[in-house]
Amino acid sequence: MKKGFIFDLDGTVYRSDELMPGARSVITKLDVQGFGIVFLSNKPLHSRQYYADNLDQLGIPVDVNQIVTSSYVMGYHLSETDKGATVYPVGEEPLVRELKGSGMVISEDPEEIDYVVASFDRNFHYDKLNIAFQAIMNGARFIATNPDRTCPVKNGEVPDAAGMIGAIEGVTGKKVELVAGKPSKLMVKAAIDRLDVEPEDCLLVGDRLETDIKMGNDHGITTALVLTGVTSREDLAGSSIKPTYVLENLYQLPEKLDLGLETGS
Amino acid sequence: MKKGFIFDLDGTVYRSDELMPGARSVITKLDVQGFGIVFLSNKPLHSRQYYADNLDQLGIPVDVNQIVTSSYVMGYHLSETDKGATVYPVGEEPLVRELKGSGMVISEDPEEIDYVVASFDRNFHYDKLNIAFQAIMNGARFIATNPDRTCPVKNGEVPDAAGMIGAIEGVTGKKVELVAGKPSKLMVKAAIDRLDVEPEDCLLVGDRLETDIKMGNDHGITTALVLTGVTSREDLAGSSIKPTYVLENLYQLPEKLDLGLETGS
Repeated sequence: MKKGFIFDLDGTVYRSDELMPGARSVITKLDVQGFGIVFLSNKPLHSRQYYADNLDQLGIPVDVNQIVTSSYVMGYHLSETDKGATVYPVGEEPLVRELKGSGMVISEDPEEIDYVVASFDRNFHYDKLNIAFQAIMNGARFIATNPDRTCPVKNGEVPDAAGMIGAIEGVTGKKVELVAGKPSKLMVKAAIDRLDVEPEDCLLVGDRLETDIKMGNDHGITTALVLTGVTSREDLAGSSIKPTYVLENLYQLPEKLDLGLETGS
Repeated sequence: MKKGFIFDLDGTVYRSDELMPGARSVITKLDVQGFGIVFLSNKPLHSRQYYADNLDQLGIPVDVNQIVTSSYVMGYHLSETDKGATVYPVGEEPLVRELKGSGMVISEDPEEIDYVVASFDRNFHYDKLNIAFQAIMNGARFIATNPDRTCPVKNGEVPDAAGMIGAIEGVTGKKVELVAGKPSKLMVKAAIDRLDVEPEDCLLVGDRLETDIKMGNDHGITTALVLTGVTSREDLAGSSIKPTYVLENLYQLPEKLDLGLETGS
């Protein structure tokens, strides 16, 4: 019997402003029955409160502490391993706030910087690249919030954190040392710590094989792939990454896992 | 007997505003005796006229057509292979001028762009990365002026074109297809075409093993490493790249090559 549930957000719980079939019904029932629930997003552009408000508006009331973003994980990890160190965020305001909130000191002085944190940054420019470069050449560690190549938007996709990581790798000749977001162990750890349960007592539900399902499989967590997002049955057949369960949509979650919840909406 | 001479500029002919020992004396003598001479730079931040003026001021009068930069090579290559095509330069004004001067059409519209040209760009920012990304995803070719990780400046070094290349590679998942600058075949070709001699009748003089000497060796050109720049005898001993000649400074060029020029200054 599972005690904790980890849901990917985009493509699993909703897409754009639309709930995925069964999301509200199943999550509400899990909540009512007292299961622990957290929600994951690799996207570092919004605060956790933004995601909590967004879910509220979609009829899924959640607490801000149930939201785990890659920015939050980065701050959480640094606060646990090197609290008070000086960081230079190549990222947007929500990342800066998460890092400050985790007790980190923000600086643009390459001689002071202990960590360069590369992230999805729509204000990325050459001067930021130069600060990151000088800091890393001066001995700063090079880490990142999320590894995503692109971010889906209304009419397609736009460059994500892989652009900033690639620029810094290109000029320093050094590979990024650690990435906080999926499929990183750090994101699993943050989610598990929030739920306060053992990994084997958790279920991770997501729509992406290479991030969601890989992360669960790699860290001893039962996984459920939901086919409402980017992955088709054909993709699944062609991939070496296999989830524990496959769900057409979230309505199938209770019966597949024999959760003793009523099915249907 | 050599007929054409190809000189790297920075570290070989001068460093910052200072001529290297023997540079003026030897280059003037080669010129007086009617040898063909061209000068190479990977740096895409200045026009060829800028380099010609700079050499003039240092006492080495040259024609603008003797200067071969990576921006020039890029324009020259495109004009020979796809004249009139539409390019998006991720670079500074001198690159834009070289490309226009070579008969290329400049555009920021991803649907029109045939080639994204990544370069050293101190005005690089996210919006440029996004245009490059959208264009390449739409089928544009991805090429670059020069592969340099960093560019030396007065008090150290700053990010060079490898930053812009790395950012675009990171978000597109595609490797740059072609680089114009050293050690590319394209730069050799542009220099040889300028000199109008056969490769085996040329000598290439430079201070860098991985760019200057490698490029000469790879393309059938006799090479001379000059030890006035970044390479020491120790570096040379530890490298698999070996020049034909090794010169303490340019004064040694005539005697080593038995050019029949007077030595000394």
